[in-house]
Amino acid sequence: MKGPKMMRFLHTADWHIGRRLHGFDLTEEQKNAFLQIQKIALVENVDGVIIAGDLYDRSLPAEDSVGLLNSMIEKLNLTDKLPIYAISGNHDSAQRLSTGTKWFKQTNFYLHTQLKEAFEPVELPNTQVFMLPYFEIFEAQQYFNDDSIKDLDQAFKLIITEMKAAFDPKKFHLLVAHFFADGSATTESESKLRIGGLGAVPISLFKDFDYVALGHLHGKDALQTDHARYSGSPLKFSLSEANQKKGVYIIDTDPFKLTFKPIKPIRDVHSLTDSFNNLTDKAFYQKLACQDFFGITLTDETLIPNAMARLRQIYPNIIALNWENGYAAALDYHGEKGQEIRQKDPMTLLTEFYEKVANEPLTSQQEKWAKAALKKASQPKDGGHN
Amino acid sequence: MKGPKMMRFLHTADWHIGRRLHGFDLTEEQKNAFLQIQKIALVENVDGVIIAGDLYDRSLPAEDSVGLLNSMIEKLNLTDKLPIYAISGNHDSAQRLSTGTKWFKQTNFYLHTQLKEAFEPVELPNTQVFMLPYFEIFEAQQYFNDDSIKDLDQAFKLIITEMKAAFDPKKFHLLVAHFFADGSATTESESKLRIGGLGAVPISLFKDFDYVALGHLHGKDALQTDHARYSGSPLKFSLSEANQKKGVYIIDTDPFKLTFKPIKPIRDVHSLTDSFNNLTDKAFYQKLACQDFFGITLTDETLIPNAMARLRQIYPNIIALNWENGYAAALDYHGEKGQEIRQKDPMTLLTEFYEKVANEPLTSQQEKWAKAALKKASQPKDGGHN
Repeated sequence: MKGPKMMRFLHTADWHIGRRLHGFDLTEEQKNAFLQIQKIALVENVDGVIIAGDLYDRSLPAEDSVGLLNSMIEKLNLTDKLPIYAISGNHDSAQRLSTGTKWFKQTNFYLHTQLKEAFEPVELPNTQVFMLPYFEIFEAQQYFNDDSIKDLDQAFKLIITEMKAAFDPKKFHLLVAHFFADGSATTESESKLRIGGLGAVPISLFKDFDYVALGHLHGKDALQTDHARYSGSPLKFSLSEANQKKGVYIIDTDPFKLTFKPIKPIRDVHSLTDSFNNLTDKAFYQKLACQDFFGITLTDETLIPNAMARLRQIYPNIIALNWENGYAAALDYHGEKGQEIRQKDPMTLLTEFYEKVANEPLTSQQEKWAKAALKKASQPKDGGHN
Repeated sequence: MKGPKMMRFLHTADWHIGRRLHGFDLTEEQKNAFLQIQKIALVENVDGVIIAGDLYDRSLPAEDSVGLLNSMIEKLNLTDKLPIYAISGNHDSAQRLSTGTKWFKQTNFYLHTQLKEAFEPVELPNTQVFMLPYFEIFEAQQYFNDDSIKDLDQAFKLIITEMKAAFDPKKFHLLVAHFFADGSATTESESKLRIGGLGAVPISLFKDFDYVALGHLHGKDALQTDHARYSGSPLKFSLSEANQKKGVYIIDTDPFKLTFKPIKPIRDVHSLTDSFNNLTDKAFYQKLACQDFFGITLTDETLIPNAMARLRQIYPNIIALNWENGYAAALDYHGEKGQEIRQKDPMTLLTEFYEKVANEPLTSQQEKWAKAALKKASQPKDGGHN
């Protein structure tokens, strides 16, 4: 239940529409995650949806990505009549994304792509929404007409000072932004997470805002202060995100409350580290959703011939295959050193490899073909000259 | 003066924002032409501005082009409160251009990018405006669910039949479209201009429309029927357009009247064919706007050394330099045949060329350098092999 003065927002970010996962198309995942976000917004009866930057994955999105994002925004704003508070992130082209902005306001779709737009908040009955798009130092230099601005700290101090001049003390102060937050200045020890180095902004600078809805980092736990959070991306966009929980935050302003609402992907992303025998053991893999995306690290110390092809028969969506001790170590079979292997001539290597893979020696015809092919491969390509 | 039932439209097309002219940036020309169009629209008190496709030059416009077109549309529609009737052309990406369309309608900016949008006219007090974007045959097949549609004639017959079903007989029927019109079916002999072959659509198909505002061809006289016209592009975009008059049409509906309003470019485009001596004669060129763009054809039959560089001192914006009889003919000096020239060794050719250009022979030091350079140039690049 929402009290009379309470406003409720859904906080999401980093949609990265058009993103691929190691070559796999994520369109269906992105459509599905959107439907879940839309449903949460409607069920929770939010007063607006915050999208904190990186709407697209690339500054030059493909046509299909443009169509997909447009349809999502149309559904939220025109069909569901939900206000949207969005900014451009470092992956977006601010210029391209800004198309139509001046018309969007008419239906409470607020999209900020330029620094100068950050200083006029959207005035809601009990909340001021400031929206600060991703910006480069030179844009801050231009806006403040001050070439002495050399780092983000300086820029943010000026920006926050100007924003605070517009504060209405009776309202909740909400900031939507897209940057690297350095949480080291916070007091809780578990939030002492240093993110990035140069270019990171101390989150303490933002203490006068009641909530900072951040985008940029894809993990919802990247920053664990109460009043500034990354929502994280709605989907896992790399193997390094395999253990993250994905979803959106619901922000209640009065009383202030943060609630995380999970999003369940069509195909999850997992990291598996095990031996080839275990991974291909039915008792093991029948408990898994094998259509999910898997990053696999083999612990085997002997070469597994055709490992990728054989694993794909069980796990069709492998996004990475590694060897725990490196592929060279697995290659180093029969106790031979890599050095010894490298000294062997090509024909010996080919013969041994074939035997290993096929469990039988080359036939004399195969041997003839192999020798002819190796001879041809070692000749210069072209006898002429230009 | 406009009568009570009369509506007045400005018809323009083929803005090609982002277009370059032989490498020269046209941004200032495009901004200036827009200001003239805007002024004509305001002075003529039009009820709307028609832009018949090819708003951008490329399906993937540069960021600056996106910013430029957005600012133009904002000025016309949001600042001047002028309705806009625009369609995508073959140079535009329909998908990209469609961003924001659903919001634009709120301020009477109608932008059609899909075939299916063509059949619902914008209903004005005395006029129906149909807007048919550029489309490919497969889109007509999809829309009519009919794979037997094999050419544009078939497609257009179906399209026009469906449009006519929505005709309000009391209103003026205006069609905005972007295609190759074949004027051969018209009665006036001077309009018997065949444009293109395959893919051209007989303009007689459109006889039930009171006016067809076309885009695609850049010359306003490409089609000279009374009730279907190309407005042409606002600027000359190639040397072949040097003799065209550029501008926009003003369309009055009742009584029907077409008026051409010219646009004056910052830098015009001209074609000059003359001898080098005449072109560089002050008495000749001081009557010209030498900062304009020039395509120059030299009539000289002898080689003019450094012709481009010397002409550029007078005409800095040369967009093309040709020799009337081909460069080879001009090279064929001293009555020698090209065949003889090709038989000379490089050192002889270089010596003769230097004498021709510098009016003095090579010094012995220069001759030494030239011989060394030619020797080096004739050696193989790399003694090694991979």
